[in-house]
Formats: sequence, C-alpha cells, structure tokens
Amino acid sequence: MIYLDHAAATPVSEKAKKAMEPYFSERFFNPSAAYQASVDVRRDYEAAKDRIAHVIGAKGADIVITAGATESINLAFNAINPGAEVLISSIEHASVFEAAKRFKTKEITVDKNGKILIEDLKKKLDKNTEFISISLVSGELGTIEPIAEVASLVKAERLRRKLAGEETPLYLHCDASQGIGLIEVKVGRLGVDLLTINSAKVYGPKGVGALYVGHNVKLKPLVVGGGQELGLRSGTENVAGVIGFAAAIEEAESHLNGERKRLGLLRNILIKELEKVPNIAFLGNAKNQLVSFVPISVPGVDAERLIFMLENEEIYVSTGAACSASKGIKSRTLTAIGLSDEEIAGSLRITMGHLNTEENIKLAGEKIREAIIAEQTRTAK
Amino acid sequence: MIYLDHAAATPVSEKAKKAMEPYFSERFFNPSAAYQASVDVRRDYEAAKDRIAHVIGAKGADIVITAGATESINLAFNAINPGAEVLISSIEHASVFEAAKRFKTKEITVDKNGKILIEDLKKKLDKNTEFISISLVSGELGTIEPIAEVASLVKAERLRRKLAGEETPLYLHCDASQGIGLIEVKVGRLGVDLLTINSAKVYGPKGVGALYVGHNVKLKPLVVGGGQELGLRSGTENVAGVIGFAAAIEEAESHLNGERKRLGLLRNILIKELEKVPNIAFLGNAKNQLVSFVPISVPGVDAERLIFMLENEEIYVSTGAACSASKGIKSRTLTAIGLSDEEIAGSLRITMGHLNTEENIKLAGEKIREAIIAEQTRTAK
Repeated sequence: MIYLDHAAATPVSEKAKKAMEPYFSERFFNPSAAYQASVDVRRDYEAAKDRIAHVIGAKGADIVITAGATESINLAFNAINPGAEVLISSIEHASVFEAAKRFKTKEITVDKNGKILIEDLKKKLDKNTEFISISLVSGELGTIEPIAEVASLVKAERLRRKLAGEETPLYLHCDASQGIGLIEVKVGRLGVDLLTINSAKVYGPKGVGALYVGHNVKLKPLVVGGGQELGLRSGTENVAGVIGFAAAIEEAESHLNGERKRLGLLRNILIKELEKVPNIAFLGNAKNQLVSFVPISVPGVDAERLIFMLENEEIYVSTGAACSASKGIKSRTLTAIGLSDEEIAGSLRITMGHLNTEENIKLAGEKIREAIIAEQTRTAK
Repeated sequence: MIYLDHAAATPVSEKAKKAMEPYFSERFFNPSAAYQASVDVRRDYEAAKDRIAHVIGAKGADIVITAGATESINLAFNAINPGAEVLISSIEHASVFEAAKRFKTKEITVDKNGKILIEDLKKKLDKNTEFISISLVSGELGTIEPIAEVASLVKAERLRRKLAGEETPLYLHCDASQGIGLIEVKVGRLGVDLLTINSAKVYGPKGVGALYVGHNVKLKPLVVGGGQELGLRSGTENVAGVIGFAAAIEEAESHLNGERKRLGLLRNILIKELEKVPNIAFLGNAKNQLVSFVPISVPGVDAERLIFMLENEEIYVSTGAACSASKGIKSRTLTAIGLSDEEIAGSLRITMGHLNTEENIKLAGEKIREAIIAEQTRTAK
C-alpha cells in the first residue's frame, strides 16, 4: 500500500499508542474522583494538556479539549452571538462554512493559489465585524495563509474601536488542523485569539482535538454539565485520547525540521515524475505551500476514475477533503481559485507523510503518471 | 487495590481493547474517503453502530455517536426550542440540570428511595410540557426509575393533544448511562423517544457515547460541519472508540444475567459485613436498585475522611457522582430524598463491578466497617 492521503487521516504513532495503553486499563480512573489513584490520573491529564498547549506556545489552562477539529471550530464560533458579522475565507473547511451559517457572513476572496487577498479583507473588515475565521493551511491546496498579517489588521481595528469608544468585540480564529508538525504554530506569534488543533492529523487518535482560547475571549460552552474544562466543555475527560494526542503532537513538533526536509525531497521526486504528464497543472504556489501537499489538476481526465484505478495498485489518493469528496460535491476551494469544471473534475489531492519513503513515492509517481496518461489516451480516442 | 467506584469509571475490557487496536494502526483510514481501504473502515464503523444500537433494540441509523453521555444529553435537549417547558426528576446528573437551565424547568419529586412520584409527574405534566428527562438509574442511589410508566403517560398526553388539535410536541428522554449490562434496556419496551448511553460505564473507552433518536423526533445538531452522523453530529468519526464501545456493550449484554447474579451475591456479602456498623443506613430500596449499588449513610461520620482512610488500604469508594463530589458540592440527590446534612456528610457510594470478587468484597467490607467504627469511636471521644 502507498498512502497519499495524510491530510485526511494519519495512523496513530507507536509512541502515542504506547502512551495511551495504561489509561485504558490500570489507569482507567475517573479524573474527577477524590482518591489518590484518580488524583494521579487528573495530574497526568492536566500534564498532557500542558504538553499539547506548550507546542502551540500556550498553557494547559488556555486550551479546551474537544472531540476534534469540527467541535473546536463550532465552539470557537460560540464566542459570538447569533446574528453577528463574520468574515471567513472562501476556501474554509465545511465545518467553518456550516458554523458560519448562523451569522451574517462575508467571504474573503483568494488568489489563484488559494491565498487570501489582504486588500479584500481590509475592504470587508468594518466596524461591525465580530469574528474572523481563516485556516492556517488550506486543506485542499496546502496553501499557507498570512495569519499574522490578518492578526495585525485585527489589532489595529480593535485599537481603533477602543479609541472610538466602540464596544463591538473582534476575535480572530484560526483552524490549524493542517500544518502542525510541519510548520511552527505559536499562538503568540500568529496573534490569534482562538486556534483549533486536531489529534487525528498529527498521528494521534481520532476523536480528540483542542481549542486555544485567549484570555480576552468570552466563550460560551456548547456542552454543559459536570463543569469539566473550566466549564467550557463538560463530560468525563477522554484521558487516554488526550494522553495520546500529547505524545503525538510532541513527537511531531520534535521532528518538525527533519520531517519537513524529508518531505521536501519526496515532493521533488514526485513532481519530477508527474511533470512528464501532458497538460498537468500543479495547484498552489510551492513557495507558500505545506511541503506535504502536491495537489494537481489534469483537465479532461476523470479524477474519480483515477482514484479507483490507483486503488487497484493499492495507491490511495483523494479528490479533496474526505467528507466533501465522498458526497461528490464540487470542491468549493477549487471553484474559489478559479478552476473550470473540467479542471476540477481532473484534480487530485496528494498529501504525503510518515507512511511515505523515497522508494514508495518514486513508485507512486510512476503509477500515477501511467494512470493519468492511460486515461488521457483512452479519452482521446 | 479494591475498586468500588464502578459507577464513576470502568476499565476498558480486554475484548474492547483488542477490537480497537487495528483501528489505531493498519485501519486508521478516514471513513469518508473514496478508496476501498476507507470504504472498509466505513463498513466496520457502521456495523459497530448497528451492534451498539442492537443492544438497545434499535438500528444503527437511529443512533448518533457522541463524545459521551454529557454530549448525548445536551444533544437530546437540543430537540426542543429554548424557553420550552421541561420536566426532570430532582435527582438527575449535573448535565441534565445544566442542560435544563435554558428552559422553564419543573422538578419531579422523588420518594425517600429516589424513585420519582408518578402522582407528582401527573400533576406537573400539562399541555405546555415539551420534554421530560429522567434517568433510568440514579447515579448516586442505583434506584431504577419507572420509565415505561412515564412513557405511558407521555403517550396518553400526546394522544390527547392530537385529538384536541394541539401541536406542542412532547418527547421523553432517558439517561441510561447507568444500568446497561445489568438490566435489559430496550427503547421499544421503555417507550422513550431519546436515550443516552455511554461507553465509559460499560467497560468501553472514555470519550464515546450515543444518543438514540426516535423517528418522531426533530433534532437539531449541536456541532455542524462535514455532515457525519446524518448531519446530526459532524466531525471525523472516532472509529476506534466506536469499535471499542460496540465490543464492550455487546460483551456486557451477553453476560447480563450472570453478572447480575454474581454481583447480587457480592452485595449480600458486603451488606452482611456493613450491617454490623452501628447506625448505618442502606440508601435506596434493594428491591428496586441496580445490583451493583450499595449506597450507605452513617450520620456523625465524615465520609471525606473515610475515603482517605480507605485509600490508605487501597480501597476506592466515592461520596457521589465524581464530577460533583470533587467540588465538595452537597449532593442534590441525597438532599432530594430528605437526608439531613449530617446524613449526607456521612454517606458513601459503593458501586461494584468486574474488578470485584467474593474475596476482595469480603475484605473491603471488613475494612470499611473497621474504618467507620474507628471514626465513630474517635468522634465519640
């Protein structure tokens, strides 16, 4: 098998699996109970939260554990009241689009590489805007967004409001599900108020995520009850999951430079193979793209057919975000960057990661090239 | 170690752990991707949902997977609009009380054993009531509530409304977190519209639960996004967690009669030991109580001190629901059944399960008896 869909899911790392193991069995205690065994579990849980938070330059008390990026995003949007004015980029994940529906939402235009146009943001950010949500990295293109630049604009607008005596709040949320482990993500340097991270994308278990919540943010819980997570997300803590997330994200962080370099080499190998395909377009701008992403488009070819042809060779690629792709919905991202229907129908998202080696990437490159050319030949007849 | 807090948390069973294992590693794929490896994971996931649903007499498509009982309860309450009239028993879990706060809520009185008074429910159930939430088993007393009887009243009221041309909906939600694996729980026989179940209480992993949603219920999601769980709870599926939940709940169900009998014998042993304690009261009515529960009260004794004394002997008991107990909040349940402050301060919740044997229960009984008598002697001086 050659897996090229790391943006959709990652296997749990051996370290994370080993770290979780005791919390299923001998350390299964409810962290809220009063006896020492539970107090120990509580301590381990809080330490794991501190470790996760540390990776993004925050403290354990600044993050709320959730069941994944989608819940984190929904919780972030709960910082504002229904009816508020919201800005999102036009290439966000479905969860951002859906969460934004309860609000008066304007979309920020992106360029042909999927990078938001700061000038457009400036035009749309007005005195009524309460919330801005932009991904750190586009999940379909790998394009890295200029979050720190957006944060400067947000700070300037907040200052203006303060001096003008205006009381409308303004928060910047960043969905950083993609990117951690390959680029440094620090909430302070990014200047965000809210940040979503996800265990399942960094070789941790599924069903765990976190939301960083800046001290200035007044957040309302989505789920109430026993008062866990400082009252922001009740329910018995998923101790094993959080321990696994901590181990995985720390591991990813510690190999960040090496892994980026390694994937950079793999990307070059892959591109060199795929460049031989007539009419192929590499989407995004490699200079401003997560190194694991090689999104391509070959107009005239049916990407759905390619996926099934490659599957027969045990090569797994995708056409876009898994949840949208499975429903056959035309990619909003690819539409937003101006691709024609034919270009969209011929697009594949190749995302590399731990399961890739020089050898299997070279082979995958050849097989993908052959499959595309076979399809081009077939349809040319 | 002798663990006597099974109502707070249970270790993950060996079967459940083994079942989960492949879904962390070789079967880690995103169930929404298009290639065969993902389609296989999707099939396993849906089969696991079917297996979970089957235990409660439902189909996979009738349940929504959540991150646990608290989220399930919050989601159930999302079936109605804010401001609706709600009835809950006066001894519900904190998550029911908190979720009910957004509504006009009346509490149904319970008798001294924690059983709801049907006459009081009849009085309070009027034409404006939209939602009733009652636990199957009280988490502090083990008292089994007459859910089927409540369901009959609900059905009669719905029929009355229909004939009168009234359009106010009426739903019955049951939090069945406690009880599964020791009593048969079938949604049809109970007659409920919504039912909460929880993996962490049946020897499955933490961070997974489900909500049964009857076909008549119009439910709004709490978390929106990629449209998973038929749009009722978006987010990449916690595949390993759900597989583990399915294995655990099936296992519990298949040993239901044997385990109930086994725990019945253990309860007799424990009660026989504890009966020797002067002034001890056994809370609840054993004839209508989950067999794993032995809640006691010894007025004049400080239960917090007892917990720490017993902890030195590696015996783990609790004073009540873990999340409330850790905050030192006076038990709402014990207040509702009419206990005095002194009786509440001297109350322990002993809950048995897989980790108990005749031998360790006998020893625990002796140690608890000795600890209480030592405290009685100390405070009498």
